[in-house]
Amino acid sequence: MKKFDINEDPHRRYNPLINEWVLVSPHRSKRPWQGQKEPIHSDNLPEYDPTCYLCPGNIRANGMHNPEYEMSFVFENDFAALKQEEIQFDDKATDTFFKAQPERGISRVVCFSPKHNLTLPEMPVEAIENIIRTWQNEYIDLGKIDYINHVQIFENKGSVMGCSNPHPHGQIWAQSSLPTEVEKTQNNLKSYFDKHQSNLLQDYLIEELKLNERIVIENNHFVALVPFWAIWPYETMIISRRHFGKITDFTEEETTDFALILKQLTIKYDNLFETSFPYSSGIHQSPTDGALHPEWQFHMHFYPPLLRSATVKKFMVGYEMLGESQRDITPEKSAEVLRNLSDIHYKNNQL
Amino acid sequence: MKKFDINEDPHRRYNPLINEWVLVSPHRSKRPWQGQKEPIHSDNLPEYDPTCYLCPGNIRANGMHNPEYEMSFVFENDFAALKQEEIQFDDKATDTFFKAQPERGISRVVCFSPKHNLTLPEMPVEAIENIIRTWQNEYIDLGKIDYINHVQIFENKGSVMGCSNPHPHGQIWAQSSLPTEVEKTQNNLKSYFDKHQSNLLQDYLIEELKLNERIVIENNHFVALVPFWAIWPYETMIISRRHFGKITDFTEEETTDFALILKQLTIKYDNLFETSFPYSSGIHQSPTDGALHPEWQFHMHFYPPLLRSATVKKFMVGYEMLGESQRDITPEKSAEVLRNLSDIHYKNNQL
Ligand SMILES: O=P(O)(O)O[C@H]1O[C@H](CO)[C@@H](O)[C@H](O)[C@H]1O
Ligand SMILES: O=P(O)(O)O[C@H]1O[C@H](CO)[C@@H](O)[C@H](O)[C@H]1O
Repeated sequence: MKKFDINEDPHRRYNPLINEWVLVSPHRSKRPWQGQKEPIHSDNLPEYDPTCYLCPGNIRANGMHNPEYEMSFVFENDFAALKQEEIQFDDKATDTFFKAQPERGISRVVCFSPKHNLTLPEMPVEAIENIIRTWQNEYIDLGKIDYINHVQIFENKGSVMGCSNPHPHGQIWAQSSLPTEVEKTQNNLKSYFDKHQSNLLQDYLIEELKLNERIVIENNHFVALVPFWAIWPYETMIISRRHFGKITDFTEEETTDFALILKQLTIKYDNLFETSFPYSSGIHQSPTDGALHPEWQFHMHFYPPLLRSATVKKFMVGYEMLGESQRDITPEKSAEVLRNLSDIHYKNNQL
Repeated sequence: MKKFDINEDPHRRYNPLINEWVLVSPHRSKRPWQGQKEPIHSDNLPEYDPTCYLCPGNIRANGMHNPEYEMSFVFENDFAALKQEEIQFDDKATDTFFKAQPERGISRVVCFSPKHNLTLPEMPVEAIENIIRTWQNEYIDLGKIDYINHVQIFENKGSVMGCSNPHPHGQIWAQSSLPTEVEKTQNNLKSYFDKHQSNLLQDYLIEELKLNERIVIENNHFVALVPFWAIWPYETMIISRRHFGKITDFTEEETTDFALILKQLTIKYDNLFETSFPYSSGIHQSPTDGALHPEWQFHMHFYPPLLRSATVKKFMVGYEMLGESQRDITPEKSAEVLRNLSDIHYKNNQL
């Protein structure tokens, strides 16, 4: 009987952060693709677009003018999924099948730069440090509101990720409840902590650094790697080396190193298919419920959809929706590809 | 303080099948859309396409010829995600962070019709009955293999769902393990059954029929509804009225009624935006592990991505990937829209 070879044979891997499995089919990356291709978007955007509702000075949907901002700029989402209003709720209205509860929250938009065409990989490190400080301020500002127990910082980049405006920006959705994925993660971090009196991601990182198979970038304070249980073809996670729970725990040096690793990772992503690389990314960190959370460790997820080229993505559809996430290329192979890519942005390479 | 109004206020709903929540933002459907639009595909496909690898008589990637089939036709996927080979596995190789196990299985493709351009809503009921009998045979044939414990029947329809060929077809992935979503569902069905000695979906269906707010189609043996906890804008579920666990339990009458409800539901879907409506669908039913599963009830999920028109879909991205699924239109509203759509396919309506 053939002996199990994780680089060749179909297998499942376990994700201890959310207690779910992923099906890995290494041999399958050879299949031809005749399906839908994503459009390629122009790399030649102007620095200022008079029709963009995020550019400085321009007018937004609600009639307000953006300030002539010079670094980053934060405003309340004009079409927020959450509302701040307190709602009176009769608990007895819930039951087994029709359980619902009002949800209170705030959605904000964070413009990363006044320049319409300047994405993270092309920004100076100082500008990224400024974004990190903006995230810190928002985490504090939103987190201190008594009904806000969770602050989700994220970015949807690229039209394939439902982003309707190429102007570099992210979002923050802050709310009363822990969202489903965060609650799952917290439960698993917590039971690991209760069992081992140590931190799951901390211990995982130590093992990954020893194995050195899935590491993409390392600096003094952060490591970017393709998790063993990654579902997206080029999914990565940035983990802090030091154990702390939230973005406001950063030292000055950590702020710089985080900015650096964000820049380097997104440069590698852009270089992969020589395109402005689409992804959704976001930070998972301690809830703002006032409790101590020694089980939490600051980390950031990158979920990029592209698989083979700038136009061919991985579809998480039928089997994946009904059964389980499935990937074709192994995480080890993806990490190797990303690791070997240049640290210089392809646009700066062109003569 | 404003009293909670589920039709207006942001809220979360609980999905008892998988123990997860969804964020519902009823007010948000008003936001304008400037983002990516999906291409519209031609409705004028030929009945036979000489370049299609699924049409009768044509040649497939592996060099084999399809037979001149007249109803449905099943073959092993030429680029299967699973392999049948038995793999020797040293259990000790697993640990907390790097848990992996080989997975054995079989992937098949089910052509629904020899006609390249005939999708479910346009097929005669007898042809859909024939597909159901094909699914039954496959469930028996695959399920009796001793290492196969789960048979996932599904369809990806439309290029936006990663389907690379418009020829009407679905897939079956049969494997040793229960996939993540099925295992979650089984756990929740099981604990409900253990607690109440009755079936979760059976009891849910009774309540839904009483409330009559989310029902889309009813016939003697099946009900199609928008679940209270639906995440996709026009998500539906077909539930059998009678309690049974698997497709092979159908009576003759149930086969006909299931074919009828499949046809009617997909007609309504096509009529919604007057387009060949994309979706991923699939059957959830008893595992084939040989055990009795009184907790299971046969049901089928439809996950369609479109939100506002034939070209604007809902993106499950940043917040949804990192936090929680989010929807804009309420399930009650979606059910009303679907219910009120004609039962006659829009193409047959045109003079
Ligand atoms: O097997 P197909 O149709 O080529 O592929 C499609 O369905 C599969 C099962 O849901 C997915 O894994 C693929 O990402 C998708 O493109
Ligand atoms: O808020 P935006 O950018 O308009 O919208 C985008 O991100 C949101 C948060 O992930 C999603 O709910 C939307 O489906 C997506 O189109």
